[in-house]
Formats: sequence, structure tokens, C-alpha cells
Amino acid sequence: MANKLWEKDFEVNKEIERFTVGRDREMDLYLAKYDVLGSMAHITMLESIGLLTNDELEKLLAELRKIYTVCEEGKFVIEPDVEDVHSQVELMLTRALGDMGKKIHSGRSRNDQVLVDLKLFTRHEIRDIADHVKILFDELIQKSNQYKDALMPGYTHMQIAMPSSFGLWFGAYAESLADDMLFLQAAYKMTNRNPLGSAAGYGSSFPLNRQMTTDLLGFDTMDYNVVYAQMGRGKMERNVAFALATIAGTLAKMAYDACLMNCQNFGFIRLPKECTTGSSIMPHKKNPDVFELIRAKCNKLQSLPQQVMLIMNNLPTGYFRDLQEIKEVFLPAFGELRDCLQMAAYIINKMEVNEDILDNPMYDPMFSVEEVNKLAAAGMPFRDAYKKVGLEIERGTFHADKAIHHTHEGSIGNLCNDRIVALMEQNLHGFNFERAEEAEQNLLDSCR
Amino acid sequence: MANKLWEKDFEVNKEIERFTVGRDREMDLYLAKYDVLGSMAHITMLESIGLLTNDELEKLLAELRKIYTVCEEGKFVIEPDVEDVHSQVELMLTRALGDMGKKIHSGRSRNDQVLVDLKLFTRHEIRDIADHVKILFDELIQKSNQYKDALMPGYTHMQIAMPSSFGLWFGAYAESLADDMLFLQAAYKMTNRNPLGSAAGYGSSFPLNRQMTTDLLGFDTMDYNVVYAQMGRGKMERNVAFALATIAGTLAKMAYDACLMNCQNFGFIRLPKECTTGSSIMPHKKNPDVFELIRAKCNKLQSLPQQVMLIMNNLPTGYFRDLQEIKEVFLPAFGELRDCLQMAAYIINKMEVNEDILDNPMYDPMFSVEEVNKLAAAGMPFRDAYKKVGLEIERGTFHADKAIHHTHEGSIGNLCNDRIVALMEQNLHGFNFERAEEAEQNLLDSCR
Amino acid sequence: MANKLWEKDFEVNKEIERFTVGRDREMDLYLAKYDVLGSMAHITMLESIGLLTNDELEKLLAELRKIYTVCEEGKFVIEPDVEDVHSQVELMLTRALGDMGKKIHSGRSRNDQVLVDLKLFTRHEIRDIADHVKILFDELIQKSNQYKDALMPGYTHMQIAMPSSFGLWFGAYAESLADDMLFLQAAYKMTNRNPLGSAAGYGSSFPLNRQMTTDLLGFDTMDYNVVYAQMGRGKMERNVAFALATIAGTLAKMAYDACLMNCQNFGFIRLPKECTTGSSIMPHKKNPDVFELIRAKCNKLQSLPQQVMLIMNNLPTGYFRDLQEIKEVFLPAFGELRDCLQMAAYIINKMEVNEDILDNPMYDPMFSVEEVNKLAAAGMPFRDAYKKVGLEIERGTFHADKAIHHTHEGSIGNLCNDRIVALMEQNLHGFNFERAEEAEQNLLDSCR
Amino acid sequence: MANKLWEKDFEVNKEIERFTVGRDREMDLYLAKYDVLGSMAHITMLESIGLLTNDELEKLLAELRKIYTVCEEGKFVIEPDVEDVHSQVELMLTRALGDMGKKIHSGRSRNDQVLVDLKLFTRHEIRDIADHVKILFDELIQKSNQYKDALMPGYTHMQIAMPSSFGLWFGAYAESLADDMLFLQAAYKMTNRNPLGSAAGYGSSFPLNRQMTTDLLGFDTMDYNVVYAQMGRGKMERNVAFALATIAGTLAKMAYDACLMNCQNFGFIRLPKECTTGSSIMPHKKNPDVFELIRAKCNKLQSLPQQVMLIMNNLPTGYFRDLQEIKEVFLPAFGELRDCLQMAAYIINKMEVNEDILDNPMYDPMFSVEEVNKLAAAGMPFRDAYKKVGLEIERGTFHADKAIHHTHEGSIGNLCNDRIVALMEQNLHGFNFERAEEAEQNLLDSCR
Repeated sequence: MANKLWEKDFEVNKEIERFTVGRDREMDLYLAKYDVLGSMAHITMLESIGLLTNDELEKLLAELRKIYTVCEEGKFVIEPDVEDVHSQVELMLTRALGDMGKKIHSGRSRNDQVLVDLKLFTRHEIRDIADHVKILFDELIQKSNQYKDALMPGYTHMQIAMPSSFGLWFGAYAESLADDMLFLQAAYKMTNRNPLGSAAGYGSSFPLNRQMTTDLLGFDTMDYNVVYAQMGRGKMERNVAFALATIAGTLAKMAYDACLMNCQNFGFIRLPKECTTGSSIMPHKKNPDVFELIRAKCNKLQSLPQQVMLIMNNLPTGYFRDLQEIKEVFLPAFGELRDCLQMAAYIINKMEVNEDILDNPMYDPMFSVEEVNKLAAAGMPFRDAYKKVGLEIERGTFHADKAIHHTHEGSIGNLCNDRIVALMEQNLHGFNFERAEEAEQNLLDSCR
Repeated sequence: MANKLWEKDFEVNKEIERFTVGRDREMDLYLAKYDVLGSMAHITMLESIGLLTNDELEKLLAELRKIYTVCEEGKFVIEPDVEDVHSQVELMLTRALGDMGKKIHSGRSRNDQVLVDLKLFTRHEIRDIADHVKILFDELIQKSNQYKDALMPGYTHMQIAMPSSFGLWFGAYAESLADDMLFLQAAYKMTNRNPLGSAAGYGSSFPLNRQMTTDLLGFDTMDYNVVYAQMGRGKMERNVAFALATIAGTLAKMAYDACLMNCQNFGFIRLPKECTTGSSIMPHKKNPDVFELIRAKCNKLQSLPQQVMLIMNNLPTGYFRDLQEIKEVFLPAFGELRDCLQMAAYIINKMEVNEDILDNPMYDPMFSVEEVNKLAAAGMPFRDAYKKVGLEIERGTFHADKAIHHTHEGSIGNLCNDRIVALMEQNLHGFNFERAEEAEQNLLDSCR
Repeated sequence: MANKLWEKDFEVNKEIERFTVGRDREMDLYLAKYDVLGSMAHITMLESIGLLTNDELEKLLAELRKIYTVCEEGKFVIEPDVEDVHSQVELMLTRALGDMGKKIHSGRSRNDQVLVDLKLFTRHEIRDIADHVKILFDELIQKSNQYKDALMPGYTHMQIAMPSSFGLWFGAYAESLADDMLFLQAAYKMTNRNPLGSAAGYGSSFPLNRQMTTDLLGFDTMDYNVVYAQMGRGKMERNVAFALATIAGTLAKMAYDACLMNCQNFGFIRLPKECTTGSSIMPHKKNPDVFELIRAKCNKLQSLPQQVMLIMNNLPTGYFRDLQEIKEVFLPAFGELRDCLQMAAYIINKMEVNEDILDNPMYDPMFSVEEVNKLAAAGMPFRDAYKKVGLEIERGTFHADKAIHHTHEGSIGNLCNDRIVALMEQNLHGFNFERAEEAEQNLLDSCR
Repeated sequence: MANKLWEKDFEVNKEIERFTVGRDREMDLYLAKYDVLGSMAHITMLESIGLLTNDELEKLLAELRKIYTVCEEGKFVIEPDVEDVHSQVELMLTRALGDMGKKIHSGRSRNDQVLVDLKLFTRHEIRDIADHVKILFDELIQKSNQYKDALMPGYTHMQIAMPSSFGLWFGAYAESLADDMLFLQAAYKMTNRNPLGSAAGYGSSFPLNRQMTTDLLGFDTMDYNVVYAQMGRGKMERNVAFALATIAGTLAKMAYDACLMNCQNFGFIRLPKECTTGSSIMPHKKNPDVFELIRAKCNKLQSLPQQVMLIMNNLPTGYFRDLQEIKEVFLPAFGELRDCLQMAAYIINKMEVNEDILDNPMYDPMFSVEEVNKLAAAGMPFRDAYKKVGLEIERGTFHADKAIHHTHEGSIGNLCNDRIVALMEQNLHGFNFERAEEAEQNLLDSCR
């Protein structure tokens, strides 16, 4: 039988604390490094407007640099009874420097502090996702080039329809990833704007220099309007989730295709043994578990935007505790997508294709359209050619000429992979990741 | 009692046709103009590769130009028993030119024809949405500037927290729209790539010149890989839906705020009379129906990505009839969002604010943080200042000094609206709408 | 270039009206019949508490009966300049009876009037859906029995795994529909509670007899609490959408299976010719358009709950205009699902299966598990039997004995279709549709 | 820079294992107890059909009983290198009993084993949720009765509209929970059907007695068709998620109301101090964190059905590894909802209301409708009464008589809480939880 909270032996307040803290302490570990970076920029600015002495600044920066190293080594922990990452960092500073450690909070509120943490984290993760997309892209292009002459059946309505090729299949997913970078870039640009200085969402009476922190942290611009800066909470997560969902959509579809092509009724591909599970009793059974999990995880990721939306929708302006809850679904999403990208790149790298599929006469009818086009090109009216070939197929006299001569851009004989590579390069170039990286490095270097 | 289909008096085939045609004929009216444009480019290219004579091209272009005019006049109809827009255009051409009219289909399939229609339509609608976003943006900036000195309470947790201003409130939504243009632009760039020439998704044996149709239609590039070109069906709609959802999210939130601020318990704003419904018996009741409908319609629009996703998800490569169903939810979405943008711009233009809200002493405590900051700036340790003011409030001796001096970027005293305007201009500039417009105009001009 | 609303030539007020009325007049046609029924019950109650004379009641009932007939004949229209169904009915009454016609609104508000309309409509549509589910169910059971001995391959991970049968396949979807009736019934029971008398959501000072209208309209109970009665708006739609989504989910999955089994690589089934589209040039191509559309429409229906949720979520207590917007997505959903159910029943009725699939030796390995079980049943330790058969398959010496002897409940040899039929009957019986039907008929009969 | 998986130092296979195992070992801890119960029933049946000796059965049951106790004590762990709960249980049995321990798997596959685990777990959790719903329900009813005479303003369109009461407000949410039990019950009934014996989804050649395990485990019936039994994976989770979402929807709305009523602009309620966070500097600020988190968590729960749907949608018949992924979002959902229910019950129990709100003259106009009704009841035509009162309000001569006399069912003066309680009791009775509990207890008692 269920118990009423207020009749239990334990302290109600403990339960309320458990409920309100939730998984915050776990989630905040994702943010620790970025919380330190944000504080470095903030106090550098505070010194410039006279709210810290130069000596205080140097000491604080040096201690923050140490904490940053602890984060990098994966050793940062939030101690029991410490509520969150902000308190933990303050605690570490005051242990080392006494009350001076508390000065890092002047002219800030938790609201803009966590906003800047989230943006720095997200900016970094987006870059990491882009890097892993590029690795998968390269594998797809490599396989597309390798198998550019290997024909396969093309389906419409899941019916055998037209000749296609493995070159086309691999290349299509490469180009899909290139397009996906457009949305990731839009997400990056929205992310890469500085919310620091917006305080609790209504600004501060301190003479903050927001341009300075913007430059120090390598943001493209600041979120100017302080009310908008706070409004970005939830909105950024939703929009980044859109971008992750586009990539996840591409991966899920590719995984679906691969699971189908791995079915014995198709038999188009061979997946690497270590990515399938078999059955000693049915040696031909190669369950494509890794691709199934990629599909499932990516389909789950595609529900992330809706999840974020349902939490934030119809909340009026201003901070609400609700927004904290988004962290639990948002922060781990990057790692999940990265895992999927890594696994997909590995399988694509190892995947082998069946170059002899079309020997199966089941696929012969799909060459009929080619034949019609040949006749038409030779002058026969299209519909007459169409009827002639149709009759041949019906009578069983149709002979499939499997020598395909497609020459136009993007076709079997002219994949345009170089142009797809150029498109990807162009889209990646648009991020300008280096700017943020350099700024972060300079900031770290300024700490002695 | 329900009937079995096969026991009804009417013809089963009629019912099946009704089911399969669905609302296609209605939906295709959105596409008619763009179907004509696509055909103009296609046949111009066909002539260049010798599949049409120059004479045929000129005659077909002239007829297509006439049909385009019919579309522009809103007089294009799909006749009874004609299945879709493509057949209707062919019918009109063959009525005028005989069998020559059928030649517009050489080297194309319905698949790439509808793909290019959808892309041209979407490209146009995105521009229209951007135009309407800009109108609303201008109103918000204008109101932000007008009311930059009108203070209002700022809330966190729906609790009175800090001084804010109407200047900040209006400006925040302007900046939100500027950010939303990043996603709309990503959607536009994905859209603005030419799928024509991909035929049924596996290319063609005709020596098509896809670069030529790309240039004629003013696309940025082509969707190179023909399998990817077809894969864009559904994906484009989902991604554009993401972009529309971001704008809709901004509008819904603004509408929510306005409905709340219109509540008598707040009384911050006055909505234009023609946008509210009242009650003769309760003269102070001003139901904000228009804003409520904006909110509802925009919340519905936010579910569009998920709708598209559920239809297309886990479909393998290749065309499926399922993709047709997306049209019914996708094509009307632009008009719905445009209506909301128009209405919102109108209300913002007419909205008045209550500049004297802060006379209500209920809001006095929110000036306490200002006081603490002043004491801190004057040298008192932050936590001491905090306690001092807290005690004053508790004892009722706190005097709120409502003269706010926020000076940093994006704060009450320094809204940075000029920089938000510049950001919007920069984001709009990135679309390069003119290129597409010029190409379409040149194409139309080439028809005599 | 986009225009500002307030600079256009036309009247702003017309545009606002167009926006606010939206598709309400179209949507209200779904509700007309039920609006009349609701009014009949309401005025019968009004007379009982002395707010109408018996003479007024009889005249009003007689006129309402006429309007009901107009609705049944499909001739009810909402005239130009009439806002909605409620006004149209009032107009028709006042034309016939003068000011007496207005008395039908005493003790009601639009809010509870539309609530009761929606509930009566939904109650009726749920019954209709249940009827159509039953028709499809019967076809599935019939086909399951017909093909109970026709084996087919069973897949896991899309890998050939174990012997299955068409009897199992058809029966599985029948049982799925039986389970779906549990949710439809929960939706029905929530729907079948009377909101009339809740007025604008806060009740009325009139001495209404809500039990009387509850009985007259055949509701199970009333929504007691008037605030809850109003809170049911949106909630009912969401919950009914859940129930429709479960049925749609079953159909979509069945359609997916069928499209796959119709693929030449499987070739398990033959769809009725009139439900496929072919190609004269590829006579073996049978595009399963009808099943694809069923799948797409049912997948779209599965997004309906989320759509409703996004509109209603985070709205506080009390009526909002937002709730009107739900009608546009909710009211047509029943018809869409009914169409899909009808089409599915038709195809299942006509579908033929390939009873010789297992002649293809590709499927032989799936009999290995049977062999292992036989050896185990004969005393050999399971893992030894497993290894023995595995070795035989590897060496190519395995002989598939395709005589399957599955005897347990629900297996190939013992489908338990009679128990599935009994389950369906029991679930359908739980609705108690007759009660509502009788009440409605009595109410209509009371009008002379 | 990102690394390619196959260029890293560590073993690729470790990474693949990490990816495929995922959080399965953590998730399986939810299922351990139920895995043991399922095995108890399965082997009892195996003995009855001669596949185990009575001696083997008794020894295995005794060991399983020990493992069950370990689970109950919270001490069950899945050891390193053990893949999942099924293997861990087998390991524990073979340690104690040698090879005999492996016999629990005869006539089962992992597929029906995990299916039955999920169903037993879900059945238990649903009961627990129902218990906690009842606790919250009781608090709401208690508060509704306590405050039945405390009036509050009722809003429509967020505009002050009509008198309402705290009795109505609390009671409305109680009745909402009673309705929610209809869906939870439908989910329970779908869950409470036995999948055991379906093996890998295609049944078994063993002469299993599925009715026996159905009875032993206290299921209502079995999932008859074995293909359907497997098809229930994902479908059950989706439908249960629907039911949880209805409860979550009720809680989220209640929390939203409370957060609003806690705003100083309303000031209707006082939340318990331990459930708010304040600010020493702004003593009147009472951030309703606990209610905000309830709202956020419940809004997140409302996205659960869509999450499950996106993972399972458009998968054809048969098991896929994808289905495993659902566990990660499904299993923890019950605990999250339970936490929210507990917290909500606690706050409602402690919440105080402001019984003097209506002293504020801002609320006077809402009594106008009452006045109109009084005049109408006294014989004045409704529209005349309407105008008379409207004029008085306009002239400021309207005197609000705040004595409300609402008498009809469900109104301020007649809350019908007893009937709402009876409805809840009836809905809870329909689950028949006792049957399952007794069966489980009998099964445990059969082990010595």
C-alpha cells in the first residue's frame, strides 16, 4: 500500500530536497568546465570595471585554471551536500582563497551563469558532432567511390523499379549529412551569442561590459536584449534539438535501409561480424543489432524537440524552475548521437556489398525503362516505345541490357561526389569553429 | 449500422478513387504556378540537348506563359476527372498544341516534377514569411523605442522580481524573430537546391543538363545525388516545419504574455478593441480572442514537425505514396503562419501600455536588489548589503527608489535596438532572395 | 512585397473576422445534429423547472425536430453572416416562432452548449468507429481461419527466424483490434458524461436539473463539478485522440507488413488489382497505393494527441478561445480513420496469399529450432541438440521437416480465434452503445 | 579533434559492447523481481507437462524464492560481465544447483521472458500509481469540502468572469483524476494478459500449457495469438504511456493554476514554506519550485507516448532490437510520476487559501450575471435584464450581492463530492488488483 509523504518516518524535507535537486548534480558535471570558463571571462571583465583588483583577478584566475584542469582530467566532483556546480566551484575557491572566492558572483545571477554554461557546453558539443558527422561523411564518400560501378535495384513503393547503384546509395547519405550541417550551423549561430550580463533576465545596475565578455569567450555577438537572453533558455535547446534531429533522421533512415538490405530476401550487403549477433543454430542469421540500436536511438532523438517543447510551451516570459528539467533530456543527447555516428562510421567502413545482385533475373524488368528511353532517343515516339517494350516483357521476349549509360549530374555514371565534398566543406567552413576555440585558449592562457 | 464497402450500392472503384485522390486536387492548386515554371525550365533544357526543336520550345513556352497568367489571376482550376496539376497542365497544352503538349514530360517523372514544384513553392512561401516577420519585427522595434522609458515589473517563477520595461519586452520579441531567421534561412538553403533531373529517384539515361535547369530556376545548387534528391521529399518538409515552428514558438509566447498582461490582475496593456470580444454586461471584460487564436494556431504549427516525422519515419529509400499525405499538412501551414504574423503586427501596432503600473506599491520590493547593488558599489560587502535591505523590507522601512540606472548593453537604459535591427538585416541579407526572383523573372521573360 | 494589414485597401475588421471565424462554420456542420439534440434535452428540462411553458416547449421541440430532419438529409447550412451553428439554429427557430426561439438559451452558455455538442458528436463517432473496427476484425478472423494451414516465414530482426503462418498473421491484427477497443471504451466512458448545466464553467444560479438532461441524452453520468466539466474541453479530445491513435497504430503496422510482403523480394501476398497502381511497361509492378495511404493517414492520426496537447498544454483553468482551434484537427479525424478502416477491410477481404512460399529453400534453416526441440523432447540435453543441428546446417546435411506440430494456445496449430472473437465481443459489449441510442430515439420521439 | 573508432587504442569490440549493452543492466534491475516470478510460473508449468521432475521443480523454486528475497531487500545486482537479468538469475541458479539451473529456459525464448517481465512490472507499477492517485484524490476532496464556502473569482479568457469557489477548484482536479483512472484501467487490462509461451513470437513445438501460467501469474487472459503477443512489445508501453500522460496532464494543469494563484497579482493561495524557495531580500517572494518541477516533469511525461511511437513506428512484425531502447524511457516513468503525485498530495494537504479575496472590489463585476439571472427568474425578459445590469455597471451604480445561491448538481452550493468519490471508488474497483496480488502471493507461497 502506498504511503502518504507526511506519514512516513523519514523527514519530509529530505524528500522535497531529493525531488527538487533531482539529477541536477549529475547533469551539472556536463557543465563544470564551461562554468569555470564563464567565470574566468566574467571576473576579467569585473576587474576592468573596477569591481575586482588586479591582484584578486590574478589569484582567482589561477585557482580557476586549476579547477579547469581538474575538469579536464575527469576528476571534478560535486561533493555531498553541495547543491550544484556553481556552489562547488565557489567552495573550491573559498577553500583556497577565503572570502575572495565569493567575489566571482558579483554582477551575475545564477540565471545568466547557467545560461552561459549551457551555451559554451552546447557550442563545444556541436563542434564535436560536426567532427563526427565529417568522419561518417568521409566513409560514405569513400564507399560511394569504391562501389560506383556496383549496380543494385532501385525501388519505388517497395517495388523493383529502376537500376540504381551502391555508389548512389552511399553518396545519397553523404549528401544528406552535408545538408544537415545547414541546420546544425543555424543552431550553432543561435547558440554562439553571449547571454552573460543578463543577470536574472532583467539586467543589472552594475556597469558591466558585455562586449568584453563576448570577445573573451569568442561569441559571435551577445544576446543583446536581456529579456531575450533569458528567453533563449529552452528555445536554444529546442532549436539545437531540431538540428540534432535532422542528423538523427539521416542516420535512422540509413540504418533502416541497411537492416532491410541485410535481410536474406534482399542480401545486398554484408555487415561486419562484430556488429551483428548470430545464432549458432542458424548460421545465416546475422541480426543487425548495432544498426537497429542506431535506428532506435536516433528515432528517440527525433522526439527530443517535442519533449523540450512540451516542457517550455505556454510559459510566459521570465525564468521558471521548469527550465532546469530540460537539462536531463538535452545534455546527454549529444553523447547519444555521437555514439551513433561513431558506430555508423565503423560499420560503413567495414560493410561489404554484393556486387552480383543483378544476376538474379528477378531484377530484369527494371531495365525496361532504359530500353524505352533508348528507342525514344533513336526517334520513336515515347508512348510507342513504351508499348513496344511492355509487350516484350509480357511475352517474355524482353532482353535486359544491363549496361547502364547515365551521364547527367548526380546519376549512376556521374556521381558528383567531388561537388558533394565541396558542399560539405563549404558548410563546415561556415561554422567558424576556430574563432571560439582560439578565444577559449587565449582565456586559459591568460591565467597564470 | 456500418456498411461493408463491398456491399454498398455504389461502385467500389469510386470509393477507392475518392480515397486515393483525397485532397490532392485541392492541394495541387498551391503548386500550379510552380509546376508551370518548372516545365518552362525543363523544356528549355530539353531543347538545348536536342530533345525539342526550337519551334516546339517557343510554342510550348508561350502556352505555358498563358497558363502562368491564369494561375496569377487565381483562375487556374483542375477540371473534374483530371487527377492532378500535372495532368491539367498537359491537358491545357494538348488542347492548344496537340500531341506536342505531351513532350514536356520527356526525361522527367512525376517524382522529380512534384519535387521541383514543392521546392519552388516553398522557396516562395519562405520569402513571404520572411517579409511578414520583418513587418512584425519593425512594429516591435518601434514600440520598444516608443516605450523605452516605461517600466514594468519583471517576474521570475511568476513572482514579482526585478524592474523591467516595456522597451525590453517588445525588444525581446524582436530579437527572438531575428534569431528565428537563422533557422528559416537554413530551411531556405536546403530548399533552394534543384531536384529536377532525378526522375523517379534513380536518374535518367537522357543526357540531361541539370546545371542548366538549376541556373534557369535560380537554385543555389542542385541536389546532386539523384537518390538524395528523392530522399529530400519529406525531409525538406520536416526541416522547413522546424523553421516555421521556431517562428510560431516566438509568436505563441508573445501572445501568451499579452493575454496575461491583459488580465485585470495585471492590467499592463490595452489591446485594440477590434481584436477583443467583450460583454455588454461586463464592460471591463476584454477577451483577447485574436491573441488566443494566434497562440493556438502557433502551438498547432509547433506540432507540424512531429506530424511530418511520423509520416515519413522508418520508410526506407525510394518514393512511397505516403509522401503525398504530407502535402495536406504542409502546404497550408505557410498561410496559417502568415495570418498569425499579420494579426500580431496589427495588434502590436495598436497596443497601448499602462505607463503607470509601478505606482502600485505591490511592486516596490523589486527595487530592493537595486538598493543592494548601490550599497555594494559604494563598498559594503555584498552579503551585508543584502541583509541590511532585507531587514528594511521586513520592518517596512524600505523606500523604493524607482529611478533605474541600467547602462550595460541590452539593459533598460541601453536597449541596443539598433544592433538588433542590424542583426535582423544581416540575417535577412543572407537569404539572397533576389537571385531566385531574378531567375524566375528571366524565365518568364523568355516566353513570348 | 508583403503588405501591412492596416495599409491595405480592404477593411481591417473583415480580415480580423476572417481570422477569428476561421473554419468554424465548416467545422460546426459536424455538430449541427447534436446541437439540436442538446437543445431538445435542455428545453425539456427548462420546462420541468418552470422556465418554459408546456406550450412553448412543444412548439420549440417540433421546430427543432424539423431542423434535425434537415440535418439528417444533409441539407443543413450555416447562412452567410451567421457566425456558428448555435446562431443558425436560433435564427431558424426565431424565423418560425419569433422571440420564443431565443428562449432555448436560458440557463446555458455557449460553453456548455458546445461541450455537449462535442460530446454527443464524439459519442456517435466512437460508435461508428467501433462498428468499422468490427467489420475489419471479422475479415481478419475469416482470413485467419481460411489460411490457418498456410505457413509463412517468421522474422526477427528482419532475419528469417522461425516458421509462422498466415493464420497467425491475420489473427494477430484481429487480436490487436480487440485490445484497441479497451482504449476506445475508456475514451467513450469519459465522453459519455454530461457537461450541460456547467454554463461558462462556473455553473448557474438557475435551479437546473442536470440529472434530467443526463437521462434524456442517455449519458452514463454527468460531469459533476462544473469547473471540471469545462476542463474536459481539450482533455476529452486528447484522450479520444489517444484511442484513435491506438487503432491507427494497428492499421499502420498491418499496412506496413502488407507493403513489404507485396515486394517482389518477398512475394507473400497478392493485393486486389483495384487497390494497386501498375505500370504498363513493368507488368509485375503492383504499387500498393491504398495500403501506403492507409499507413500515411494512420501515421498522421498518431500525431493527433500531440497536436491537441500542444494547443491545450499549460493553459490554466477556464475557457480560452484556443480550445476552438482543436476542432479543426479533431472533428475530421473520425472520418479519416473510418475511411482507412473501410479500405483495409476491403483489401483484406480480397487479399490472396502465396501458399507455396516455403518451397523456396532459402527458408529451410528456420526449421532447425523445431528439430532441436524434437531432439530435446526425446531426451537429448538442449545445448547438445542445439550443437548437433547447428553442425548439420553448417555441413549442408540438415533436412528441413516442414511438418509443424505446434499445439499450445495461440500457436500455428491452435489459433484460438474463437477466444479472440469472444474477447472482442466482450470488449464491444462493455460500451453499452444501446443506452445512448435509445435515449436519443426517445428524445426525438418526444417531439411532435 | 574527433577520432575514428577503428583508429583508437582501445578494442573496438569493447566499444561495440558498450553501445549495444547500453543502460540495459541498469534497466534490468527494475525487472529482476518479475523475472523471478515469471520463471516460477514457467517451471511449475514445465513440470506439469513432464519437462521437469517434481524434485527439480522444488529445488528450482526454492532457489528462485531466495533470489526473490534478495530482490525485495534491494540487494540484487547484475555482476560485471553478466549481460542482463536473465543471465544473472541463471548464473545464481547454476551456482547453487549446477546444470539444473539452465532448465528454466526450456520452452521459452528471451523474447517472451522479457515480455512477461515487462507486463508483471508494469502491472505492479500501475497499481502503485493508482494508489498514489487515490492519496492525492483524497486530499483534493478533503480540501474541497473544507473550502466549499470560500469563493474565488472564475476566469474565462484569463478575464475575471464569474464567481467560483475553492471548493470547485479542488473538486475539479479530484474529478479529473477519477476520469484518468478510466485510461489507467484500460492500460492495466491490456497489460494484464499473459505473453508467456509465445517464445520468439512464433510459438513453440513444446506442448506448453499457457492457461496454467496465465492462472499462476494472475493474468486476466493470455495474449492468445503468439504473433500478437510479441506485437504487444512497444504497443503496451505506448498505451500505458497514454494513461500516464492523462494523469500527468491533470497534475501539470493543477500545478500551473497553483503557480499562477501564488503570484502576488492574484494572491489566492499560500504554499507550504518548505515547498517554496524564497529570497532573504524579498521576503514576499515565494518561488513555487516544487509545483514548477511537478509541472515540468509532468509535461515531459506527456511527451512519452510520442517518444515510444517514434521508436516503434513503421517497424514491421517481429522482434527488433529497437524495442529494447524503449525500456530506458518507459521503466523510469512510473517513479517520476509517483514522485510528482506524492509531492502534489503533500502540497495540497498543506496549502492554505485566501478566503477574503473577493473583498477586493476589482472582482465585483463578476456578480452581474447573477443579478441578471435573478431578474430573469423574477420574470424580466433575459435580454432586458442583461441591458439593465449592464447600464448599472457602466454608471457605477451596480451593487454586487456576493451571496451566491447555486444549487444545481456540481455547482458552488452543491459540489457533489460524494458522487465524485463514488465514481473514483467505482473506477478503482474495476481494476481488480486483488486478483493479481493473490496469484503472486500463492506462487511465492508454493516455494519452500
